Amino acid sequence: MRVIYSEDHKFRDAKTELHGGELMKPFEGPFRAEWILAAVKEQGFKDVRAPEKYDLSVPMKLHDHGYLNFLETVWERWVAAGFTTEAIPISLPVRRSYCARPPENIDGLLGYYANSVETSITEGTYKAVIAAKDCALSAADHLNAGHHFVFSLSRPPGHHAGIDLYGGYCFLNNAAIAAQRVLDHGAKKVAILDVDFHHGNGTQDVTYERDDIFFASLHGDPMDAFPYFWGHREEVGKSRGEGFNANFPMPRNTPWSVYAEALEAALKRISEHGAEALVLSLGVDTFEKDPISFFSLKTEDYLKMGAMVAGLGIPVLVVMEGGYGVPEIGYNVANVLIGLEQ
Amino acid sequence: MRVIYSEDHKFRDAKTELHGGELMKPFEGPFRAEWILAAVKEQGFKDVRAPEKYDLSVPMKLHDHGYLNFLETVWERWVAAGFTTEAIPISLPVRRSYCARPPENIDGLLGYYANSVETSITEGTYKAVIAAKDCALSAADHLNAGHHFVFSLSRPPGHHAGIDLYGGYCFLNNAAIAAQRVLDHGAKKVAILDVDFHHGNGTQDVTYERDDIFFASLHGDPMDAFPYFWGHREEVGKSRGEGFNANFPMPRNTPWSVYAEALEAALKRISEHGAEALVLSLGVDTFEKDPISFFSLKTEDYLKMGAMVAGLGIPVLVVMEGGYGVPEIGYNVANVLIGLEQ
Repeated sequence: MRVIYSEDHKFRDAKTELHGGELMKPFEGPFRAEWILAAVKEQGFKDVRAPEKYDLSVPMKLHDHGYLNFLETVWERWVAAGFTTEAIPISLPVRRSYCARPPENIDGLLGYYANSVETSITEGTYKAVIAAKDCALSAADHLNAGHHFVFSLSRPPGHHAGIDLYGGYCFLNNAAIAAQRVLDHGAKKVAILDVDFHHGNGTQDVTYERDDIFFASLHGDPMDAFPYFWGHREEVGKSRGEGFNANFPMPRNTPWSVYAEALEAALKRISEHGAEALVLSLGVDTFEKDPISFFSLKTEDYLKMGAMVAGLGIPVLVVMEGGYGVPEIGYNVANVLIGLEQ
Repeated sequence: MRVIYSEDHKFRDAKTELHGGELMKPFEGPFRAEWILAAVKEQGFKDVRAPEKYDLSVPMKLHDHGYLNFLETVWERWVAAGFTTEAIPISLPVRRSYCARPPENIDGLLGYYANSVETSITEGTYKAVIAAKDCALSAADHLNAGHHFVFSLSRPPGHHAGIDLYGGYCFLNNAAIAAQRVLDHGAKKVAILDVDFHHGNGTQDVTYERDDIFFASLHGDPMDAFPYFWGHREEVGKSRGEGFNANFPMPRNTPWSVYAEALEAALKRISEHGAEALVLSLGVDTFEKDPISFFSLKTEDYLKMGAMVAGLGIPVLVVMEGGYGVPEIGYNVANVLIGLEQ
């Protein structure tokens, strides 16, 4: 198991997150990657490498170009507008905004490109986002070079980032970027399996009309869990992508026994798709002690999760997504890696 | 000029507004109505009356029933969920939320019904919202009884409240509720003229497919001004409402001379519509000293505004919308009333 890691994730260090009507210390911060890096090293994964540098040619195949420009320039435009705090939008283009287009005003532009507003944009955010994208692309290139398992230990996460939407702590869709890189190397069919507690609405968005990337997500029922407006079972893909999107929403307190059944069903679909490689969007906020989620997985369950995924018999690129609040997240991640290699 | 006013507006007294990435003291608070009431009394409008009480039958003709239930119950559900602060959502159903429906989770439900997130919902909000609706309906009934000019001095404002959307300090669309009451009394055609600085996206929403309510809005260009995603010229109505919606976006520092031309054009359209009565959504945030807007109207210009509107020669029901930051808002409102009666 090769691990790709960049210290540049530390440039993403927001001071505020909107949560429950308050601005509080973010759940997603540099300490997460530090906990995970320490635990995976302790558990024997010592082949940790820095990523190569890449341009935006792969992200440009998945994300809107105006959106990419926004990500690069938003902080300086926010500051130039006279704001002195971290950037959060107030107005978003919801139902019946028939003629909505990207506003020139930066406050409006933030709202245009947001799917949620808990995520403050900060000075260093873009630098960290670029490094996370580089980790994903480097991991894909290691996979393309013949490595069976690679782990992109990156942050910020990516699975809530859509074609032209940021939110849920995510800006570029690292998992889809990795999948695209594997396709660009010659694979005809790949899959992304999202085991983060939250629906991978961004990944669904960028793959929804594609038949070369099968996307499956196991997550808290959107009737009860963020991001709320994506992740229902009837979202099955569109146009040529119809039938290539599978959502597995689950209720509060879902234990491993129930979770494992959904995982088995998702893996069966991925196998039937004929995926030549898998990108595993790994969030460990399914853990029973996660502060903002409601499943009941235990540390030992992540060993079984890794083993089940390995059963596909195809190369697996693990991309780090969520998992919050407790140092155990590092051991839970390490257990997935151990399970994969068993 | 009869003035309808309820002390119950004071129950809407939020402590926080999300603005520029910070939670700050709201621009929209009880002091606004107090400034306006004092100024209009000082300027001779002493016929101030309390509203009658009304049920929800008129709002139910304009707003979604699930939304009305949400407004009534949101605070107790927010508290029951364990939150201890004012209610603000984080995730909103934006582009490509194909299967979005009202979530059961109150955090998600807030987002489902929001078009913007600066507006904290508080314990007393619903009581004030109901009182504002009663002011609008009472004012309409005074108009229906033969009064030529009536002023509903109410808050919270209403013109950003859509069919099933709150935001921009608004919850029920008082102006449209008043217009509906006038139609219910026998009028065949009415108009709503929105001179608040911000586009009346909520009023546009509830009237967009109707041909009996002509809606015209003069406002800051949405490319540069809240609410950003509504208010372009090409939004002209839909279905049987096509041609019955007119937007007049204007740039920064618009002075009275330019504003007056747009107002004249809007009044011409209203006259051509054959409106038998006018609801004037009166915001005075077009004032040069307004803290969150960018037009350059002066106190004396509001006299001319009132006189121009009176030139329609039809009964006018004035509903209070925005106008912030400085006590002059009271004199600006009074000047519109004076101009109407000249």
